[in-house]
Amino acid sequence: MSGASVLLKALREQGVEVCFANPGTTELDLVRAMEEVPGLRCVVGLQENVCTGAADGYGRLAGKPAATLLHLGPGFANGIANLHNARRARTPIVNIIGDHASWHLECDAPLTADIESLARPVSGWVRRIASAQDAAGAARSAVQASLADGGQGATLIFPADFQAENVAQEPADAAACDAVPGSDEFDAAAAWQQLRRAKNPLFLLGGGGPSSGLGGRAQIAAARLCGLLGGKAYAETFPARSERGRGLPDFDRLPYFPEPARAALDAADLVVLVGALPPVTYFGYAGHPSRLVPQERLLMLAAPGQDAASRLEALAELAGAPAAGFAPAALPQAAPGVLTPQSIAAVVARALPEDAIVSVEGGTCGYPLYAASAGAARHTVLTNTGGAIGQGLPVAMGAAIACPDRRVVAVLSDGSTQYTIQTLWSLAHENLPVTVLIAANHQYAILRNELRRGNAVLGERAAELTALDRPRIDWVGLASSYGVQASRAATSEELAAQLESALRQPGPVLIEMAL
Amino acid sequence: MSGASVLLKALREQGVEVCFANPGTTELDLVRAMEEVPGLRCVVGLQENVCTGAADGYGRLAGKPAATLLHLGPGFANGIANLHNARRARTPIVNIIGDHASWHLECDAPLTADIESLARPVSGWVRRIASAQDAAGAARSAVQASLADGGQGATLIFPADFQAENVAQEPADAAACDAVPGSDEFDAAAAWQQLRRAKNPLFLLGGGGPSSGLGGRAQIAAARLCGLLGGKAYAETFPARSERGRGLPDFDRLPYFPEPARAALDAADLVVLVGALPPVTYFGYAGHPSRLVPQERLLMLAAPGQDAASRLEALAELAGAPAAGFAPAALPQAAPGVLTPQSIAAVVARALPEDAIVSVEGGTCGYPLYAASAGAARHTVLTNTGGAIGQGLPVAMGAAIACPDRRVVAVLSDGSTQYTIQTLWSLAHENLPVTVLIAANHQYAILRNELRRGNAVLGERAAELTALDRPRIDWVGLASSYGVQASRAATSEELAAQLESALRQPGPVLIEMAL
Repeated sequence: MSGASVLLKALREQGVEVCFANPGTTELDLVRAMEEVPGLRCVVGLQENVCTGAADGYGRLAGKPAATLLHLGPGFANGIANLHNARRARTPIVNIIGDHASWHLECDAPLTADIESLARPVSGWVRRIASAQDAAGAARSAVQASLADGGQGATLIFPADFQAENVAQEPADAAACDAVPGSDEFDAAAAWQQLRRAKNPLFLLGGGGPSSGLGGRAQIAAARLCGLLGGKAYAETFPARSERGRGLPDFDRLPYFPEPARAALDAADLVVLVGALPPVTYFGYAGHPSRLVPQERLLMLAAPGQDAASRLEALAELAGAPAAGFAPAALPQAAPGVLTPQSIAAVVARALPEDAIVSVEGGTCGYPLYAASAGAARHTVLTNTGGAIGQGLPVAMGAAIACPDRRVVAVLSDGSTQYTIQTLWSLAHENLPVTVLIAANHQYAILRNELRRGNAVLGERAAELTALDRPRIDWVGLASSYGVQASRAATSEELAAQLESALRQPGPVLIEMAL
Repeated sequence: MSGASVLLKALREQGVEVCFANPGTTELDLVRAMEEVPGLRCVVGLQENVCTGAADGYGRLAGKPAATLLHLGPGFANGIANLHNARRARTPIVNIIGDHASWHLECDAPLTADIESLARPVSGWVRRIASAQDAAGAARSAVQASLADGGQGATLIFPADFQAENVAQEPADAAACDAVPGSDEFDAAAAWQQLRRAKNPLFLLGGGGPSSGLGGRAQIAAARLCGLLGGKAYAETFPARSERGRGLPDFDRLPYFPEPARAALDAADLVVLVGALPPVTYFGYAGHPSRLVPQERLLMLAAPGQDAASRLEALAELAGAPAAGFAPAALPQAAPGVLTPQSIAAVVARALPEDAIVSVEGGTCGYPLYAASAGAARHTVLTNTGGAIGQGLPVAMGAAIACPDRRVVAVLSDGSTQYTIQTLWSLAHENLPVTVLIAANHQYAILRNELRRGNAVLGERAAELTALDRPRIDWVGLASSYGVQASRAATSEELAAQLESALRQPGPVLIEMAL
């Protein structure tokens, strides 16, 4: 049995079921070995950032790693941006990077690169496989590492000769890995003593799995505590995964720009971190502190990856907080006629089917949809955690593979979506039930907003550098050329009708929303 | 004057005329400063690998660096693959990467990453700008560094606060940099002594600028020496830039696979490196040495970046080699009917206008076109030097910007072109005279060829992982959606007619060649 087969079997035994792949010549023994591991589903991406973004979406929903299969340093490099987002989302991922045969490296052939230097910034764990015999153990360690520290990238570099080499003895089966549990030590009484002294506590809820600050249970516990103590709760600005919609309290998200974020946070005398990191500004803004809350006003109830929900529930019990009687949020009505971010948000919020997964990327519709969706059917939201754009579409793809029984809706900006546009082909290839909504304003609007801050005038060349309208991309033609059914909506009524129809299709549909 | 303005002005003064840009929030002061430096042309790419690939194409033709403008670590990461190719091509490029404000870095905001670790594998030189005052000097050093060592990537990391900061005193103008000349020391007599003793010398000609081994002059000198001494000359397999066509001798290129490469090289008792590196196999192949020629059979006449042409001419003079009387190469006739790689090559070779630039990527048409083009009109060929695919289209774009009076023809494979498909929009946006020919076989044929080596059977899953035909990408629709005029050719006759028409258009045209 080849080192490649051993590795894939070990991954499968550790619970890895999906591999997002864009292999090349140095991964061909792994490709050959796929015949022997039928339980490992392979999904091809036409560019590596599609693969890594899909692995991120998969891992956020599945709570366990997908593998990626990438081609040496340059192929891996193409997938770094979405691994950066995955790192911020604490998504478990196992990257397998083929490399030259170990004896070939020294001659610095064209594709040779310093893979370790490229991998480390987006991997909590990197290991170069040292022999075919080493492959099984390396695979097990990689899966375990990917689940450590709340979830992270684990990168295996696998030289081609060790993939091909035969392993004399088949390694013994090993038990599947479970997620490494965070520390359970939690002093609820001490936390309660600190919290009860606060006049205006603020709960900052961080995203993640069911026991995160935004997994459903924690929001309800936060509502109970707010009911008892006063104070407010906010979702972190860009959660990896959060529950939203009917049956959950409607908490605002912490604003993106520093002025409103500070206004929200400065009103609190205690900021309770419920699976969230201490809030910092997204960029450095002159005149604003990077760290928005000084240490002495922070209470770290649960770090990301810890069981925030149980801790907050324990606190609510200790406080004797009654069940929360929050009012169901209203579902806004879309204004008829030409589309606006607000009317798009209203149409989407009304159309969301129960238990949908919503992947959101881009400044144009992101916040309006957040505001409109509190009264929507219960759904799971995935956002861009690391700021590397081109994440929303592949994450939607990966989520659809993790959850084949759920509908996925991707609400995306046109500028962002171009970075990983090749995802459309994989959606068609796999016939995934993903509805892609493109807010097509034909500009980098977020940059124009930043350039205009403080009433500044947008310069001529700055306008050119942020314009995408010469020519306007024909999103309907683009999607069709990748085999994805598509249409264009210019009004709320058209969007509502097209969206309703799209959500009944078994496969992917793209709707260009003219803005 | 802001640090950003100072940097851009210094770059302009050093001869930088073009900036391929995909900026974000941390580069906005550089975007603002563009208003003050009108001589610096900005070209937007919708994804960073478009920008870096275009900078590679520009630098190969212009012989001086373009700048790229990229957004922190993740934005830079998206451009690494084509910087890897540029490194192998020894292309001068100055990368400008905006970073968080220096005081914001420590708080590890979402977009924070280890930029240095990402940059080093593709940069001969990396510098983090330490103040606004430092910007002008850093820009000058970067341009100089980019021209050192035969050409390389020079990467500047520019924190946002230093971009915004005012520089009290405008820095003095500095003289423009010239390419750093390689060492001129060359002992022609000693080289001739070694060469004259060889029974079967082989000249391996490396690509680059006019004085490289494939810049025209060197091929003619090589033909003179071959005429005198016997022996053969080969082009290296993937030259960064080479001259080809009528008026030049028709040397084969060194084969890609190890068996024919060894057959060619083993016949020689002396391999003379004329601006080429010692030949190595592209990948490690079991049973074949990585280094194809042992040290004792190598004569390094000129390293890449050195003046190979003058040295070879000096040798020819010393040898008293008469002018070469090589026969003009034949121009093949395309077989009528359905397209094959050979008929495509013949049609393209016949259609090439004088002084065209041809960007070639992909295994399907690469070698057939090489074989067919010796008798074509004189043209310049650019190939994929580093093996990171997705290079051919952006390199064509950059070449068109470097040489506005020349036609550019890109002969590409469908699989490769998907990696940087967004380039089509920039071609339309800039209305560049680039004719894009897509060999659409709807598979990763190079991988299937490798998988079938030694008469191996292609496994079912291996076939799936290398298939791009479900769905088939509609290249005509795809190009049209980006604003590029497009058509489909299924026969030699159709291709010839469509190509002739495309070459008369002022802007870009794409032709899908059905295989």
